[in-house]
Amino acid sequence: MGSPSSLSPPEVPMQLHVGGEEQNRHCTDHIELFRQESYFAYLFGVQEPGFYGAIDVASGDSILFAPRLPADYAVWLGEIKPSAYFKESYMVSSVYYTDEIAKVLNQQYRGPGKPLLYLLHGLNTDSNNFSKPADFEGIDNFETDLNALHPILTECRVLKSAFELAVIQFANDISSEAHVEVYNLEPCPSCRVMRKTKVGMKEYQLESMFLHHTYMYGGCRHCSYTCICATGSNSSVLHYGHAAAPNDRIFEDGDMALLDMGAEYHFYGSDITCSFPVNGKFTDDQSLIYNVSTVTYLWIYAVLLAHDAVISNMRPGVSWVDMHILAERTILESLKKGNLLLGYACCSTFPSHFLILLDLIMISSRLPDFKRDVDAMVQERIGAVFIPHGLGHLLGIDTHDPGGYLKGAERPKEPGLKSLRTSRELLEGMVITVEPGCYFIDALLIPAMENVQTSKFFNRHEISRFRGFGGVRIESDVYVSCDGCVNMTKCPRAIKDIEAVMAGAPWPIKTTTIPSSSSST
Amino acid sequence: MGSPSSLSPPEVPMQLHVGGEEQNRHCTDHIELFRQESYFAYLFGVQEPGFYGAIDVASGDSILFAPRLPADYAVWLGEIKPSAYFKESYMVSSVYYTDEIAKVLNQQYRGPGKPLLYLLHGLNTDSNNFSKPADFEGIDNFETDLNALHPILTECRVLKSAFELAVIQFANDISSEAHVEVYNLEPCPSCRVMRKTKVGMKEYQLESMFLHHTYMYGGCRHCSYTCICATGSNSSVLHYGHAAAPNDRIFEDGDMALLDMGAEYHFYGSDITCSFPVNGKFTDDQSLIYNVSTVTYLWIYAVLLAHDAVISNMRPGVSWVDMHILAERTILESLKKGNLLLGYACCSTFPSHFLILLDLIMISSRLPDFKRDVDAMVQERIGAVFIPHGLGHLLGIDTHDPGGYLKGAERPKEPGLKSLRTSRELLEGMVITVEPGCYFIDALLIPAMENVQTSKFFNRHEISRFRGFGGVRIESDVYVSCDGCVNMTKCPRAIKDIEAVMAGAPWPIKTTTIPSSSSST
Repeated sequence: MGSPSSLSPPEVPMQLHVGGEEQNRHCTDHIELFRQESYFAYLFGVQEPGFYGAIDVASGDSILFAPRLPADYAVWLGEIKPSAYFKESYMVSSVYYTDEIAKVLNQQYRGPGKPLLYLLHGLNTDSNNFSKPADFEGIDNFETDLNALHPILTECRVLKSAFELAVIQFANDISSEAHVEVYNLEPCPSCRVMRKTKVGMKEYQLESMFLHHTYMYGGCRHCSYTCICATGSNSSVLHYGHAAAPNDRIFEDGDMALLDMGAEYHFYGSDITCSFPVNGKFTDDQSLIYNVSTVTYLWIYAVLLAHDAVISNMRPGVSWVDMHILAERTILESLKKGNLLLGYACCSTFPSHFLILLDLIMISSRLPDFKRDVDAMVQERIGAVFIPHGLGHLLGIDTHDPGGYLKGAERPKEPGLKSLRTSRELLEGMVITVEPGCYFIDALLIPAMENVQTSKFFNRHEISRFRGFGGVRIESDVYVSCDGCVNMTKCPRAIKDIEAVMAGAPWPIKTTTIPSSSSST
Repeated sequence: MGSPSSLSPPEVPMQLHVGGEEQNRHCTDHIELFRQESYFAYLFGVQEPGFYGAIDVASGDSILFAPRLPADYAVWLGEIKPSAYFKESYMVSSVYYTDEIAKVLNQQYRGPGKPLLYLLHGLNTDSNNFSKPADFEGIDNFETDLNALHPILTECRVLKSAFELAVIQFANDISSEAHVEVYNLEPCPSCRVMRKTKVGMKEYQLESMFLHHTYMYGGCRHCSYTCICATGSNSSVLHYGHAAAPNDRIFEDGDMALLDMGAEYHFYGSDITCSFPVNGKFTDDQSLIYNVSTVTYLWIYAVLLAHDAVISNMRPGVSWVDMHILAERTILESLKKGNLLLGYACCSTFPSHFLILLDLIMISSRLPDFKRDVDAMVQERIGAVFIPHGLGHLLGIDTHDPGGYLKGAERPKEPGLKSLRTSRELLEGMVITVEPGCYFIDALLIPAMENVQTSKFFNRHEISRFRGFGGVRIESDVYVSCDGCVNMTKCPRAIKDIEAVMAGAPWPIKTTTIPSSSSST
């Protein structure tokens, strides 16, 4: 793969990009709040709609083309800003109007024959949609190349600069803080909602609190994605929260909450999931027997072990597929020790106290038969029943940032692995989410328990007791450094920390110094 | 114009509608939060994307066509709901899948020849876009009519039923309450923002407070439109707040705020504007001389007089153009009395106390010369310099609800009047915004003051002192009843009430009983 500097004039003089346009809602004049197209945001940082931008590859000169606004824009939409404003704000070499593109690009071209334009056109491997190449009046007088630019720019976006990391860190800091506010579940007293009114609230109220905190105190007008505020069995719906499942359940004592919410700041996103019991208690002091509280503990513990195991092993050169398998193994081990999956270490009932259970986990995992059983489960893709999504994805200007599959790379086909949004080896400068989860999903569990090949692994009796329990996910945003990684997310994760914060303890958010990066922007 | 009951089988048996689809952001898999297409929401109330709906005009039977979801929807997006769920939720006669449309419509048809389908296709007179008619595989085997349905359905939407009014009232109640919360500017103490920290805040923090209140306590996930939170000179930008002018100014002592914000509940919107000085004081007790505070008072008073005059005169049969002129006249009278516009009642300086000014207003407006001067201003369209937008618009499922111009009706061409979103006579059942405003907009003031025909009306010296002052708008949502109208918006409007609320007084929001309506839904 080439790099921008390998392109040289006069054959390859200019790249041309088109920014996004405002969208009306159906036939109406309702205009959705505009958010810039991500590649254009990456290159030019322009927040206004209707722009084009060009880069002279040889000289590095950058040109913005602004829309020529009608006079009554000043009355309805605000000051018509002069070219100098955009030149200064976006630090480009020059600014023209969009109706001058053909003329300016022709003037800029110094080679023979038709000027050559590199246009952005390529596959987004998450959506399977293609980016839309720039088009303008007079483009027929140019040669165009639709292939070279997309993989190069995408790879630039994969590797974050120090400036980009700083913005992602800010989005993480304000979002972490907002998650902690939601943990507290302590809305404004002036709004007459009592402190600690947890049970009986609606899921969307948690979304509202998060959005308010990140906008009010962080200036984040956009969210990285629609908030997932799932309680009870909804927490096993991976992308809950959309219009057909709109965070509208009233939650009850004993419910787990899975909150997957991240704010966006200056185009860059965060993507954070916290899981916790809505009543703030992982264990039930009154009845330390095998109950939902104990399973909640085991569940969270299993996922947290996986989350921490992955982060401990992340460094440049490590395969993301291997990290996914590591997370899966860790969770399968816990499920086996918890007697939900069968094999050497199974026992007929849970121990009555989770500390005894944890002791058992530590002992049994060292036995060779135990390892052999888990190997067999990984082989049979039992992990994909409990964690059907990929371990994580690149994060940046898009929540699912592009570049997960290099051109020609094939997506894995196995259950679970096929959902991975990248199968690449980690590189210094990547920001990637680490989001292991574990869910009771009937649509996956039932077929797996009925399948001749896989039914032997499941303790149907134990599992049946927890149908409808939902799921747990723990998600942090992690930056790959030169020799390891840095977790940019700062939410309470240890069970004691979660319980303390939910009981009202303050949570310290300290500023992290981000190591400088040698990557390109 | 016909009505649904004038259509009879077998020639005109079915109407077919298509609901909205989720939209990806550019080439990515980022899906914008879906909001149903408005006509489809009106007829079927369906909140999910991907539906079609048909109505058998003769029998009144309604049929929904749901998308056939893939099996893994259950893993990623939630339970695949059975037909019975949609039948019960949306109270339709039957439910099929979208791939069954041709078959079902053919079965439903009882006439000779090709079945005839009425499809929705017509102009939205606010956007100048056309609604998209339903399309499906097999449509070639049907006759289609693209003309009859749109005007009939649009007129149904113009006249609100009692159920619709109840929802609009709820959106108004929660939005009014949220405006009052923002007046208070008293965010959650747990977030460590001090009570009464007004000056020094950013405009978007007011937006955040409003959005949070309406979602947290009213369940309003959508806003009717992008919030306009304008302070200082931004308040003269009529549609401030969009991506290129994103409510990001820090406001200062002495600034006016113009907040135009409305929540949407179950598709139905509200649209409310409050204007107030951010420091909570209309008058400056230390210096009761001619200053910005006094002008603020005059300005608000002028617009409030216009707002109240219109509401006092609204009833079925009244022309909306006449109401616009009434508002304009009322404001021009105030400006003339305040010596910003010239004529009989002009005086060389403002009186030093606004109460004296108000006395003068009351006396001078009764004099015949005064009336003649204002008549001349209206004739010369001076009002359009200060209130360039229309007085108001129909409100419902769209903020600018359709039906403002009946087919063939011409839009007025005069300045100001050409911006009217409707020129119709009021009908019982209409909900329409009353939103007079008064602004210092250089782009309009300067040409008008330089024009030979109109320059004589302006007191350039007085006006020049207030360039950059911004503007004032007061907007309520008003329901036209059988013999008058009902103001559905419950914000403090009188200056003493605004000052009291801003000083911390509670504002009573009482439930209004909505009169039943004879209009169709």
